[in-house]
Formats: sequence, structure tokens, C-alpha cells
Amino acid sequence: MELNFRLDVGGEKLVIGIAQDYETNEILMVAFMNKEAVEQTLKTKKAHYYSTSRQKQWLKGESSGNLQTVKEIYIDCDADALIMKVEQIGAACHEGYRSCFFRQLDINKENIDIDNLRDKDIKIISERLFDPKEMYG
Amino acid sequence: MELNFRLDVGGEKLVIGIAQDYETNEILMVAFMNKEAVEQTLKTKKAHYYSTSRQKQWLKGESSGNLQTVKEIYIDCDADALIMKVEQIGAACHEGYRSCFFRQLDINKENIDIDNLRDKDIKIISERLFDPKEMYG
Repeated sequence: MELNFRLDVGGEKLVIGIAQDYETNEILMVAFMNKEAVEQTLKTKKAHYYSTSRQKQWLKGESSGNLQTVKEIYIDCDADALIMKVEQIGAACHEGYRSCFFRQLDINKENIDIDNLRDKDIKIISERLFDPKEMYG
Repeated sequence: MELNFRLDVGGEKLVIGIAQDYETNEILMVAFMNKEAVEQTLKTKKAHYYSTSRQKQWLKGESSGNLQTVKEIYIDCDADALIMKVEQIGAACHEGYRSCFFRQLDINKENIDIDNLRDKDIKIISERLFDPKEMYG
């Protein structure tokens, strides 16, 4: 079998990469990976991704130091997505939270307008581990 | 704030949707969602996705009966990905496994060629809950 880089963004062929805490199973982040990012991840055991906005491969934590050491990798049925079970140093999110998924949507509210989510529809569910302004200037 | 349907596949604007077991935190599947799929999910509390291959919205479990009842939704920092914590009926994967991520890649093997993964590089880590041939004919 082979990985199926079927997602095409700006001519770059990608799979989805999900980082999950290897101890707690908390989902830390999701991003895209091109072939080079998967290869670098396997080679170094540090999670690499592909930024569709910057159009380049990146090592997670290259500027923050918040590296992800990859312990296990799982491939999905269509081979177009990976889970990396990782040991996360510090916070995964550039906003300073452990996980990028730090906002919960209150799905029991009536008439949620997904084009205009109100503050009262959203709850921040975790604490900041660092101040992004101090980390990234 | 609003969801950021920034991923464009064939002219359809999408976010990433991850389904995670609300009790065990096992990741069950990942797929894409267009705006209609998110709205239908919020309205019905059953996970809906958008199929980029069939170019249509679909209700997860519409043919198998293996519906996902959505208990909680989390939004990531860039608002371009969602986690749905779900109660999964039966198996999430059309291959008959509880999770689509039923294959583990042995990352400690030397010289893994991601274009040609060998059987000995991959381990099936879970049991089939149904036979896809019987389920889908």
C-alpha cells in the first residue's frame, strides 16, 4: 500500500495529519503534510507539516521550541490521513494553549449562526500556557 | 467569529471535521465539512460531512445505520477545523472497524518507503465489527 496524497492545495499533494497526545488522547492540532513532511517526520521522529499559506514544509516547534516527538503513527482506511501520537513539549497552539481546540461551541443554543458566532456561543475551555506576544514578539 | 471554510476542493469551501469518541477519546474518522454539513450537524445533532469524491453532503451512517450522535463540538484556533465528540453506533469505518485508523505503521523500522509500504511495516490493531461485503453488498 501507499499513502494517498489525494488532497491538492495549490498544486501540492497532501494528507491530513492529526497530532494526538500519546498519554491522554487529547487532540492537539490538525494540519496538512506533504510527502516531504511525512518523510522528515519518519526520519527525525519530530512532527513536520506543510503550511498551505506559507507554501512550505515546517518543523512543528521550530520557532517556539514546542516540538512534538512522534511515538506512534496510524493510517486511516483511505490512506489519506495520519494520526501521530506525540509527546508534546509545552503548548501545541500558537495562541498559547495546550491544544488548538481550546474553544467549545455550545451546540445546545438555539439558532446558532455559523457565519456569526457570538461570544456567548463559545467557551474557552483551557488555560493559556504562554503569552503569544512574549513567545513570538 | 466565524468558521473559516478556507480549504477549497473543486470549488467547494470546507473545514476539517474530526469525529472523536466522547467517552474514550479514540479518534474515529476525519473528513471534510462544507457549510451545509455543519449546519445540518448542528440542527440534527448527527454528524454530516461533505464527500469531495462524490461532491455531495452526506449523513454519516445513512446507508450503514452507524450514525454519530454529536455530544460536543470544539473549534480550533484558526476556525478551520472542528472536533465532534460523538456517540458512535457500531463501527465508524466502512471497512468494518470501529475507527478508520485501524492500521499502525511501525515507525521504528528502518528505510520505510512511504510509496511502497510493506505488509511487515503495518499492523492491524483492531477487530472488524462487521463484514463490509455483507453491509454494503
